[in-house]
Amino acid sequence: MSRALVSVSDKTGVVEFAKGLEELGFEIVSTGGTLKVLKENGIQAIDISEVTKFPEMFDGRVKTLNPYVHGGILHRRDLSSHVETAKEHGIIGIDLVCVNLYPFKATIERTDDFDEIIENIDIGGPAMVRSAAKNFNDVIIVTDPNDYAPILEALKNGNNTLEMRRNLMIKAFEHTAAYDSMIANYMNKRFNDGFGDKQFIVGNKVCNTRYGENPHQKGALYEFDNFFSKNFKTIKGEASFNNLTDISGAVKIAAAFGEENAVCIVKHGNPCGFAIRDSLLDAYVDALKCDPVSAFGGVVAVNGVVDKELAEKMNEIFLEVIIAGRITPEAREVFASKKRIKLFEYDSDRLLVSDDAYDFKHISGGFVYQDADKVKDEEITGAECKSNREATEQEMKDLEIAYKVAALTKSNCVVYVKDGAMVAVGMGMTSRVDAARCALKKAEEVGLDVTGAAMASEAFFPFRDSIDAAAAAGVKAIIEPGGSIRDDEVIEAANEHGIALYFTGVRHFLH
Amino acid sequence: MSRALVSVSDKTGVVEFAKGLEELGFEIVSTGGTLKVLKENGIQAIDISEVTKFPEMFDGRVKTLNPYVHGGILHRRDLSSHVETAKEHGIIGIDLVCVNLYPFKATIERTDDFDEIIENIDIGGPAMVRSAAKNFNDVIIVTDPNDYAPILEALKNGNNTLEMRRNLMIKAFEHTAAYDSMIANYMNKRFNDGFGDKQFIVGNKVCNTRYGENPHQKGALYEFDNFFSKNFKTIKGEASFNNLTDISGAVKIAAAFGEENAVCIVKHGNPCGFAIRDSLLDAYVDALKCDPVSAFGGVVAVNGVVDKELAEKMNEIFLEVIIAGRITPEAREVFASKKRIKLFEYDSDRLLVSDDAYDFKHISGGFVYQDADKVKDEEITGAECKSNREATEQEMKDLEIAYKVAALTKSNCVVYVKDGAMVAVGMGMTSRVDAARCALKKAEEVGLDVTGAAMASEAFFPFRDSIDAAAAAGVKAIIEPGGSIRDDEVIEAANEHGIALYFTGVRHFLH
Repeated sequence: MSRALVSVSDKTGVVEFAKGLEELGFEIVSTGGTLKVLKENGIQAIDISEVTKFPEMFDGRVKTLNPYVHGGILHRRDLSSHVETAKEHGIIGIDLVCVNLYPFKATIERTDDFDEIIENIDIGGPAMVRSAAKNFNDVIIVTDPNDYAPILEALKNGNNTLEMRRNLMIKAFEHTAAYDSMIANYMNKRFNDGFGDKQFIVGNKVCNTRYGENPHQKGALYEFDNFFSKNFKTIKGEASFNNLTDISGAVKIAAAFGEENAVCIVKHGNPCGFAIRDSLLDAYVDALKCDPVSAFGGVVAVNGVVDKELAEKMNEIFLEVIIAGRITPEAREVFASKKRIKLFEYDSDRLLVSDDAYDFKHISGGFVYQDADKVKDEEITGAECKSNREATEQEMKDLEIAYKVAALTKSNCVVYVKDGAMVAVGMGMTSRVDAARCALKKAEEVGLDVTGAAMASEAFFPFRDSIDAAAAAGVKAIIEPGGSIRDDEVIEAANEHGIALYFTGVRHFLH
Repeated sequence: MSRALVSVSDKTGVVEFAKGLEELGFEIVSTGGTLKVLKENGIQAIDISEVTKFPEMFDGRVKTLNPYVHGGILHRRDLSSHVETAKEHGIIGIDLVCVNLYPFKATIERTDDFDEIIENIDIGGPAMVRSAAKNFNDVIIVTDPNDYAPILEALKNGNNTLEMRRNLMIKAFEHTAAYDSMIANYMNKRFNDGFGDKQFIVGNKVCNTRYGENPHQKGALYEFDNFFSKNFKTIKGEASFNNLTDISGAVKIAAAFGEENAVCIVKHGNPCGFAIRDSLLDAYVDALKCDPVSAFGGVVAVNGVVDKELAEKMNEIFLEVIIAGRITPEAREVFASKKRIKLFEYDSDRLLVSDDAYDFKHISGGFVYQDADKVKDEEITGAECKSNREATEQEMKDLEIAYKVAALTKSNCVVYVKDGAMVAVGMGMTSRVDAARCALKKAEEVGLDVTGAAMASEAFFPFRDSIDAAAAAGVKAIIEPGGSIRDDEVIEAANEHGIALYFTGVRHFLH
């Protein structure tokens, strides 16, 4: 006769599972709340105290930390010395352990009460999970209600394989590792501003990507808090590794303006088109004008619903990815004939951005970790006018757009916006004036008139050269953090050219 | 009388610690190997079995998983109900737990034997660590030999504060979280190619940075396997968040050519200067020529030793960071007068790069994870000549350099190298032909002659336009992955211009 220890915090499906185990001939051992539920449902479960020969103590703090329990789990059935010792001490083998842990996460989401939080750190549970995982050769460790049905099925069919138990072992260690990582991160957030001695970045796999950044690299997407599982819907095609990073960049920009009808086109992580318009169709058409060559094969983020009309317009050129709040059935139909296009949505009226509190970057030998960068509206509304001339209302609106887009474009960058649409952008360059000039040159090639545009830089202009170049192209308003030792020259240049110049005091490098 | 449970895998300093505890009036309880060492050193330790009233079983798999141990740790001293229950059952309080865990890491580094690896997963240890951490209100949890002396000191001075115990609690959960993360990652590497259902990225803090990517963001550096603690020496100044990412980029490039005297100058993560020469001084001088404006305030990686002569040359302009294998005392003296320069070294003849197997990027709501990208020499030596003309020996050498630098420069990039030095570079742009052209324009402005240069692209040229632009500037050899549907046009263009064209078949996007 086999024995199963069932002790769960999340009771989902546990009755059916225990019934199934009973039918398969398992004797069920259980604890406290789980025992009660099982008995109420007619399952003949034994109280753990019959096994431990010891009462539950200290308000449940100690109940399963016991040699009869852990000996029952941990002894090797392939070693006669172990089997004999077990017999000698009256230790009965436990062949299946079904445990999930006190809800630490739900607790910290619900309360700040530290005593309650501490009480919700499970001790006995992880010990049983880890014991059973260590002895996966002999024991089935079950930590996820989603596994109940397949495990019962496997047992019914005599398929209690080593491979199944090994996979469950891996899942068990993932479970305890994630649990303690969450505790450590919580404590560091509460007591060390989020920057403790160790940092745990834990992701749940959403999917493998076909490959990584390049075909010879394997790659996968991992999520926090089910952000992708819950929100990100694949309508057509399969997001590649590079699609995912581009989508993240494009969506952040297109969603940075609340309910506005914004469209952003991204290539290699940087925007090559952006516009806000009364309609999404107009926004797309004007976003595309900025750099139609780069837009080829690009990622387009639409902050709203893609309808048939917009879809038909988009279908005129090759776009690799469209990500939107929603894509209507009629619009999907339009794209059906394009084999290579990929469609994703959030099943929402607008694009969704995860409000991640932290950001990190891999570097050789480790990673750098930081608070996430956010642009506050007050930076723009509270920006200081440094020039003789103040910006007009339209210029101010364009400055806001340019500034927010610049904060989400790779440094060094300079962004030019005219009447709500980006008309030029220079990015990712080692010199700011090169970024300023390359952008203008491109606009000229494309045939876009920059006259009257607003310009933003994510960091200060170190010299007046970029201002002079902008003025020559007709730029009328500039926003930047300020802070260069040559700010005076920059202000002088703005005044000479009749440009309205604003300093925000906040830098937004992005690399 | 207080009681301490001491059971350690790493015996460093444990005798002195236990002696100190004994002197402070602690009764010591111990297990197996630790007990033996303590007794040999004259410490009156009690065998754990006297506490557990149960023998050690199953080759040590079960010894401390026992209510007398965990009850002794976990009961709340502030609740009379707990204290009375303990008394009733003869459970004696354990007030300090000193435990470190079976050496899982050392084991997987030493052997592939799975039984041995499984045996080195500690079960009892983490359970005690976690019990004691949960009850940090009453119990001191010690997991790190480096804490022995300060803890003894605190106890001697009557400073057993809640804050101290809370910090030790956080450290304890970091310890168990890191331990299980390591186990889960190991299992996923062994059985799931490194891409399991959960991914644990765990770093140890090296230092806070003054701020993050921008002044309003907090930031810190976390390392894997002590890479920074062990190798990275600060000679002068303090590495900022952005310095660290730039250093990572610059060092990878400068160290990509083995023992060669290579110098790389980086700004905003991208190279703006690179050269290989017979001497590092010449390499620096020629690296600087590529883009002296961008080099201002840049990060310079020197693959060797910075001596006085090189230091004097470098001191002529403002560089923010110098990272080298080593910086001689005479060279440090040269920089002493420059207040803002920062100096770092590896105390090694050459630069060091950590051989990280994986790479990852934060995106909104999660992260993407992939195998690290590496350029293999065979990609270049085995590259296929697609043109009528083959490259000369010097061109081939330049192609190799251009190709390796391009693989470590942000996409889209195009790199031009002549006689071992980079003469032009376009990077981070949304269009490849823009990158190709911007680079040439810059070279023209700087007054560098590109005639006879080799050119590399990290991904295929989609059109012949970049080839035509390069030919017009005098480029004589090109290396790229190939794979465009218009490769024929590209090959035709190369032949028209008498350019030697090589395809490697391997793309190296980097974003």
